[in-house]
Amino acid sequence: MGEKSYETFLSLVRFNESGLVPVIVQDCETGEVLTLAYMNKDAIMQTLKSGKAWYWRRSHGRLMMKGERSGRVQIVKEVRFDCDADALLIKVEQVGGAACHEGYRSCFFRRLREDGTIEVCSERLFDPKEVYSG
Amino acid sequence: MGEKSYETFLSLVRFNESGLVPVIVQDCETGEVLTLAYMNKDAIMQTLKSGKAWYWRRSHGRLMMKGERSGRVQIVKEVRFDCDADALLIKVEQVGGAACHEGYRSCFFRRLREDGTIEVCSERLFDPKEVYSG
Repeated sequence: MGEKSYETFLSLVRFNESGLVPVIVQDCETGEVLTLAYMNKDAIMQTLKSGKAWYWRRSHGRLMMKGERSGRVQIVKEVRFDCDADALLIKVEQVGGAACHEGYRSCFFRRLREDGTIEVCSERLFDPKEVYSG
Repeated sequence: MGEKSYETFLSLVRFNESGLVPVIVQDCETGEVLTLAYMNKDAIMQTLKSGKAWYWRRSHGRLMMKGERSGRVQIVKEVRFDCDADALLIKVEQVGGAACHEGYRSCFFRRLREDGTIEVCSERLFDPKEVYSG
């Protein structure tokens, strides 16, 4: 894909006042929502060029390829955007199974129960105390 | 569910500087991602109390029950939150089929193709020019 093609898509995306757009990351096979991340313009470009997910990591204050150290990269199969063009949805193949730095398959591993208590509801694949989780 | 139970959950949620938290809305049966919306504390309380999705509509600058005029409400079946507690995921039954005000089942009705062009990839259920879409 040429960079000119990316520019057309990028011109449609509405970034927020911090230059970021929220990105819903969904498992391309199971449909499970893995995480909500953020991209800036450079992250979108890197993602489209490389076919792997790059995010603006707010906690680190820099652009990072997901799994750049852990190897748990996300291979991007599809990029969608919403009616207002201020949110993206990407469908990915999650290498290594766990998307969450806490070792769970999905970052959304906690559920609110009827009685107001919290329940863990996603499979834990590793213990971050034992394995590098970044 | 008592309000005290909600308070426990609410105390965990990390709202942004505008007092909002992004909410991924997923079809509880198909797993399709329908929309990305925003809730403030009151929206979460109304949602938990009523069992229907309430959002802070940034474009309207007010709290609204999804489908309050159109009847296309979202019945909330599950509430999850992520590892950082700064994003929610709700699984809903979408009454009336279309979640998007443009008449599509999902707000994420456009996909970026390999050649850089944009493709519509979600079913259109009504034409907003003919039907009230709010």
